[in-house]
Amino acid sequence: MKTSGRSEETPVKRLAIISATSTVMVTDTPTGHGLKAVRECSAHEALSVVIFMGQLFSLMPVVGYTGSDPRHVTVRVRSVRFVYAMVTLSLMLTLVVMLVNHTAHLPGFNVSVACTIQPEMRSVSASLAYYAVILLFMVELIGLARNWSTIMTRWYEDELPFRSAPYRPPVGALSLRRKVRLIACGVILCAFLEDILNFISAYQLNGLHIRYCPHRSGFWKNFFHREHPYVLRAVSYNPAIGWAIELTMRVAKFTWHFVDVFIICLSLCLQRRFLQYNERLERMVGQPQSVGVWRELRLHFVRLTELLRFLDGRFSRLILVSCANDMFFITMQLFNSFDLKPTTMTSIYFWYSLAFLMGRCFLMLFVVSSVSSAADRPLETLRRFPSSNWNLDLRRLCDSVATADNALSGMRFFYIRRPLILAMAGTIITYELVLLDQVKNIPDNTRDCTF
Amino acid sequence: MKTSGRSEETPVKRLAIISATSTVMVTDTPTGHGLKAVRECSAHEALSVVIFMGQLFSLMPVVGYTGSDPRHVTVRVRSVRFVYAMVTLSLMLTLVVMLVNHTAHLPGFNVSVACTIQPEMRSVSASLAYYAVILLFMVELIGLARNWSTIMTRWYEDELPFRSAPYRPPVGALSLRRKVRLIACGVILCAFLEDILNFISAYQLNGLHIRYCPHRSGFWKNFFHREHPYVLRAVSYNPAIGWAIELTMRVAKFTWHFVDVFIICLSLCLQRRFLQYNERLERMVGQPQSVGVWRELRLHFVRLTELLRFLDGRFSRLILVSCANDMFFITMQLFNSFDLKPTTMTSIYFWYSLAFLMGRCFLMLFVVSSVSSAADRPLETLRRFPSSNWNLDLRRLCDSVATADNALSGMRFFYIRRPLILAMAGTIITYELVLLDQVKNIPDNTRDCTF
Amino acid sequence: MKTSGRSEETPVKRLAIISATSTVMVTDTPTGHGLKAVRECSAHEALSVVIFMGQLFSLMPVVGYTGSDPRHVTVRVRSVRFVYAMVTLSLMLTLVVMLVNHTAHLPGFNVSVACTIQPEMRSVSASLAYYAVILLFMVELIGLARNWSTIMTRWYEDELPFRSAPYRPPVGALSLRRKVRLIACGVILCAFLEDILNFISAYQLNGLHIRYCPHRSGFWKNFFHREHPYVLRAVSYNPAIGWAIELTMRVAKFTWHFVDVFIICLSLCLQRRFLQYNERLERMVGQPQSVGVWRELRLHFVRLTELLRFLDGRFSRLILVSCANDMFFITMQLFNSFDLKPTTMTSIYFWYSLAFLMGRCFLMLFVVSSVSSAADRPLETLRRFPSSNWNLDLRRLCDSVATADNALSGMRFFYIRRPLILAMAGTIITYELVLLDQVKNIPDNTRDCTF
Amino acid sequence: MKTSGRSEETPVKRLAIISATSTVMVTDTPTGHGLKAVRECSAHEALSVVIFMGQLFSLMPVVGYTGSDPRHVTVRVRSVRFVYAMVTLSLMLTLVVMLVNHTAHLPGFNVSVACTIQPEMRSVSASLAYYAVILLFMVELIGLARNWSTIMTRWYEDELPFRSAPYRPPVGALSLRRKVRLIACGVILCAFLEDILNFISAYQLNGLHIRYCPHRSGFWKNFFHREHPYVLRAVSYNPAIGWAIELTMRVAKFTWHFVDVFIICLSLCLQRRFLQYNERLERMVGQPQSVGVWRELRLHFVRLTELLRFLDGRFSRLILVSCANDMFFITMQLFNSFDLKPTTMTSIYFWYSLAFLMGRCFLMLFVVSSVSSAADRPLETLRRFPSSNWNLDLRRLCDSVATADNALSGMRFFYIRRPLILAMAGTIITYELVLLDQVKNIPDNTRDCTF
Repeated sequence: MKTSGRSEETPVKRLAIISATSTVMVTDTPTGHGLKAVRECSAHEALSVVIFMGQLFSLMPVVGYTGSDPRHVTVRVRSVRFVYAMVTLSLMLTLVVMLVNHTAHLPGFNVSVACTIQPEMRSVSASLAYYAVILLFMVELIGLARNWSTIMTRWYEDELPFRSAPYRPPVGALSLRRKVRLIACGVILCAFLEDILNFISAYQLNGLHIRYCPHRSGFWKNFFHREHPYVLRAVSYNPAIGWAIELTMRVAKFTWHFVDVFIICLSLCLQRRFLQYNERLERMVGQPQSVGVWRELRLHFVRLTELLRFLDGRFSRLILVSCANDMFFITMQLFNSFDLKPTTMTSIYFWYSLAFLMGRCFLMLFVVSSVSSAADRPLETLRRFPSSNWNLDLRRLCDSVATADNALSGMRFFYIRRPLILAMAGTIITYELVLLDQVKNIPDNTRDCTF
Repeated sequence: MKTSGRSEETPVKRLAIISATSTVMVTDTPTGHGLKAVRECSAHEALSVVIFMGQLFSLMPVVGYTGSDPRHVTVRVRSVRFVYAMVTLSLMLTLVVMLVNHTAHLPGFNVSVACTIQPEMRSVSASLAYYAVILLFMVELIGLARNWSTIMTRWYEDELPFRSAPYRPPVGALSLRRKVRLIACGVILCAFLEDILNFISAYQLNGLHIRYCPHRSGFWKNFFHREHPYVLRAVSYNPAIGWAIELTMRVAKFTWHFVDVFIICLSLCLQRRFLQYNERLERMVGQPQSVGVWRELRLHFVRLTELLRFLDGRFSRLILVSCANDMFFITMQLFNSFDLKPTTMTSIYFWYSLAFLMGRCFLMLFVVSSVSSAADRPLETLRRFPSSNWNLDLRRLCDSVATADNALSGMRFFYIRRPLILAMAGTIITYELVLLDQVKNIPDNTRDCTF
Repeated sequence: MKTSGRSEETPVKRLAIISATSTVMVTDTPTGHGLKAVRECSAHEALSVVIFMGQLFSLMPVVGYTGSDPRHVTVRVRSVRFVYAMVTLSLMLTLVVMLVNHTAHLPGFNVSVACTIQPEMRSVSASLAYYAVILLFMVELIGLARNWSTIMTRWYEDELPFRSAPYRPPVGALSLRRKVRLIACGVILCAFLEDILNFISAYQLNGLHIRYCPHRSGFWKNFFHREHPYVLRAVSYNPAIGWAIELTMRVAKFTWHFVDVFIICLSLCLQRRFLQYNERLERMVGQPQSVGVWRELRLHFVRLTELLRFLDGRFSRLILVSCANDMFFITMQLFNSFDLKPTTMTSIYFWYSLAFLMGRCFLMLFVVSSVSSAADRPLETLRRFPSSNWNLDLRRLCDSVATADNALSGMRFFYIRRPLILAMAGTIITYELVLLDQVKNIPDNTRDCTF
Repeated sequence: MKTSGRSEETPVKRLAIISATSTVMVTDTPTGHGLKAVRECSAHEALSVVIFMGQLFSLMPVVGYTGSDPRHVTVRVRSVRFVYAMVTLSLMLTLVVMLVNHTAHLPGFNVSVACTIQPEMRSVSASLAYYAVILLFMVELIGLARNWSTIMTRWYEDELPFRSAPYRPPVGALSLRRKVRLIACGVILCAFLEDILNFISAYQLNGLHIRYCPHRSGFWKNFFHREHPYVLRAVSYNPAIGWAIELTMRVAKFTWHFVDVFIICLSLCLQRRFLQYNERLERMVGQPQSVGVWRELRLHFVRLTELLRFLDGRFSRLILVSCANDMFFITMQLFNSFDLKPTTMTSIYFWYSLAFLMGRCFLMLFVVSSVSSAADRPLETLRRFPSSNWNLDLRRLCDSVATADNALSGMRFFYIRRPLILAMAGTIITYELVLLDQVKNIPDNTRDCTF
């Protein structure tokens, strides 16, 4: 059993602990000890709002996630959410297959030449990448849903010491649950606004297109023709199908936003524990303590470190794909900013969308990197501890903090720390400058009447 | 209270210390103990000249900064300096609004296409960035002015040990106050020269313009038309308004230079303490000392480290914006060096301005990075200490020096150390080479008669 | 004698050990102790399949490599394999000379201008680089073959402790021998497929060429003319010569694939030992041990570190050239992806070849970098060890793990760790974007009838 | 006195040591103790051949450098070498002034536009950079000559322990003096060959020019006209002046090669000491030693570290300029490789010159970086030391090796270690690819008859 070696307790003892505490917690929650503000909620509880949000968009189809015991979370195949998730997934799969088919029949199929030279092909390639990434996210999230109970149980155990007496929630800060809720809702609201702007822009472009081109099909038929040409290649037009696909696409699009929100909220929960640790350490400066306390402190830090590694192992694939995806689309959109925008609404949508994309990406990187900042901070506090009270555990704690790679990573290919953000920005700028030369190849396709 | 945990003294004791010493110092200054050269001035005193300079250009509107007690510094709303600052700020704000309005009405508004292709648009974008950064600096400096008393009081306390007996000012070096004064005045004088050259160049270009173009407005009207076309879009020409705006612009322009000077002088004051620390350490090599001395040494270093972190927290936003700004304008100016210069004076101005910009930026980075060099030096000295006198405090001091991130940073996105300068230079060269391809798109606009 | 200082044993004692154990092992293998799964095979034994594979393609001409005693491996000049190796080598040498001669007589010899502008010249340069690298690999591998006995004996000695009691092979994993066999065969099979696709594509292109061009030579003569024009410049066409050269080329081409397979398998063997070390460490968490055990643990880690350095010294040249070569050809092929492909088979071959090249390169870098990951892991486990059982050897072990450069390298110019893979990918993307501008210079040479 | 704190000896004692040992050494050299091969020569002695070489090309005008006592080295103003140095320096200065004057009068003076677009201008700019760097080197070397005695005395003192009993010269290696001589002579011979090829190429180009152009001046007049047009702008042609200038240029050109040789040989001497240190350490593995020996070992390492820092302080400016210069000219020459070469000799000269430049630069970086490799090696050896004999000095030695920046640097902007070489190569490749676009702007100026 892999986890058995994780700390100095035996696995049996551990299971006993979690049973006991989860019972305590269950009885704890309804009674309340008057010190409601003091009680620190678990990551499992804080993240429930994020999972709920995901389920709105057919992601993370787990049940039992609102309870306080993480061991009760399961994936039930016969639940509505699971069916919803599967329907969306299979629809997306169908769409991707249609798109691939469509791409293969484009006049100049030689993919590579086309993708740099013809803007139509470029946008098709971008769409393909976009849908592929969404599919990948969906599958990955279903995988996580299946393991959600395991992950949360481990997290629950490891953060247990941080929810009781010697650690206090950071003074003056929002409670963890509220912070998570605030950020998640904020980002998703912005995403909604983007979606609405996108619809209005598409609506207006469709109007423009009908005015210029002699296609003579109805407004909505033309709309779907423009938005999803690859679908109409396979099935004949029908308003019901059109709207179903349009809706699926819009739901699927939120996967993209959701993954960033998900990573942000995870990191917030993790960072919170390091912050609490630092606050306790700060309070202890100058106060002599028994050897047992130092040992406990060291073990708690080692525990947090191991929790970080564990979570990194589970989520780093998601982080890697999300970062790559964000970088690719920022580069793409910046390059597209040189295209002409036929209507004002398109312009507004475009710039809002770009700003939102960059903002979301920055927020994600910033929050994730703040885990690393929080994990490095004890070193500064420990320097202030008097030498008179120095002992082996303090020394080992110092060494642990100094040598640990306390940062979430993208499959360990890169560790997300502050300087990484700068490196990414620099890379995007370089790519953009290099691509400036290709701008002259962009034709004006406002009055292009092919679909 | 956040600062309470900062070191092993209680806050009450601390306040007593500062009161006592500030009294001592106040009585100290007029009497003088004959050892005038030995007395080391505080950062608060050394920086007063920089603040005075700032106030000439409507920045840092604080009063009481010439006294020796940093707690007496305040922002008085009814003082001339504050009114001056507010007037300049609001004028600049108006100008930026006008400029945005002007930009929005330019023929080809599609910002992005224009900004790479049309040089006119490019220069408008650059102006916009330029004014936006100046505004940002102004607001940031007002924020610092409000906290100046807090910042300086903390600094004053933390550098107190370095101003008395065991630490001597570096032998043979200039006194801190003189060094700060020399560098600040030097840079500002160069900036004055740049301003004058800019005026002469604009004057001559205006003459050339009048000769070639059939506008037939007076010399000065034409001058302002050329320099500030966006203003004349909003208000009709009037010599008084023209000169007022011209003057405001020139005052505001110094904000840019001032921020660099400000950062340089801050870093000089901070670096000085590390240098003094190193000198004391050097003198102690080979001399056995009591355990108390080693403990004191360690605590002093920890204090300096914390002071550095505190100051970094306060000033790193300024550093980040200043570095980004300098890099952007160096890249921009190097790219502009391919433009044709119609008059010799324009050429001289252009090259002087570029050299000054690069020199100032290099000086800033070099001085800031020297803080980090000075903070790393104790490690070398400590290696020479004999093992016979080795103890826990020395070992912890070694660890502190080795693991501390003792460098000022740009919001921790990057730490300013020597190699960073090379990295920045390399980045600028790469950008320039990549942009070489765009050079052929620059038209000759010497005889362009539109404003 | 250089190795004498390597550890705390005397060289004489060492030789005794290896003699004894090799005898034991020889008797050991046929009898078997019932615990067959437990016996861990040596790197020497695991790599024998790779050497066998190499010998199929005329590489690594050693005899005696299938036995269990690495000291019996030698290069016998009068063996078939050696003659085979020499024949291939000399044929390749001849071909390279012919190619150089051919290149020198191309119309526009000014190498550099040509190599960027004329696609024909570009492909000739790429061929030249390709053959030169293959020759270099061949010579390097013969050098390794000569030292194979020394290298393997050292490896055998150093990994001896890891093949007996306290270390167990990783639970649930494949045995080392099978893992090596699986990966080696997998990659070589993919390479075979590539070779077949290449042949079919060349066959079809030849058919197309004959249809369009009025050369009127036989099918196969035309085939060789197209494939190896530089040979027909020197000798007149003859079916036997044609097929001999074609075969040699195809055999030589496998050198390229083989070197990557070789590096992958080496790294697997090395990584295995670190994994075993980690597993033992994991099992020891929380169990108090005698000082002797800790000392032994530390010495084993030092031994592994030294073995890593030793192997790095022997193989890093191969790694450097292989990485450079892979990067160059990935960049080249990505750039060529903009060429038009005249037949579907050519398209399929091209994309398969590119995918295989990138996959093989990634696999190689990933496996090599996992050595470094495995070697860094003990630090995490050691943090969990209780302080009550702490001692000097544990502390030194911690320091060893933290400060050692435990990674294979390319001549120490770069260390192969995970982030390097990202850096390489980033570099390739940058190069590709920069080269995008040159794409317009690629002419359509489908109907080009010159050879 | 700055050096006083350098180690645990008093300055007076130090001077006594050097006097004593220099006397011993002086008497030592002529008698010889039969163990001639064992005596390790000092850096001062080893470098004398390099200084001699420099003096051939008018550099490093010191006298007394052949003796064994570094304190006798001085710059004598009335010596032939000094006069020679001054004459060359002033001639070069005159030529640079002439060149600047010439550049200023070129048709399109707008420097920047010109320097990218007109190849003539580009070559003039390159020449200007080239001469400016040579002048800078000359001045820098005169500065070093003035301080040579101080530098060498310090070096002499610090390497003294490494020249006697417990340290042996590396077994089987060349003696330091021979190694320095071999490398210095090798590089300078290659430089001579380059010079000769350059002359032949210029000679042939001149012949070609006379054939095509109707200038009708004599062969040699035409030759100098082509080679040094800026001189003939200032003074009228005269064979004596022509040859004098030609000779000066060729002598000055060696400054460039010499600086690289100089840096290589310095690094060799420094690296030797670290190698000796490592060898001694290797021999001590497994042998218990008294505490005094460990202390001595630690102090010797600290001494080497300080010597490295001292030498870095003196030579890092030279290293910085040399690296920048080499990188600039490699980029430049690679770019020029796209020019057409009118004669075969020009081609040969060009490719030889490029290969030599790259080889020399690589050799320099490699040797300098090997100092860092040698200085990091003790860490590996120390890991093998048994824990039974562990003590404070060994631990401090470990920490010293691990935390020291033991590498020569370019003004601390970059530290020269192996990976830097790769980074530089990568940068050059990137620049070259970016510049590929500019290649089409290069006209064919073979038959250009203007000077």
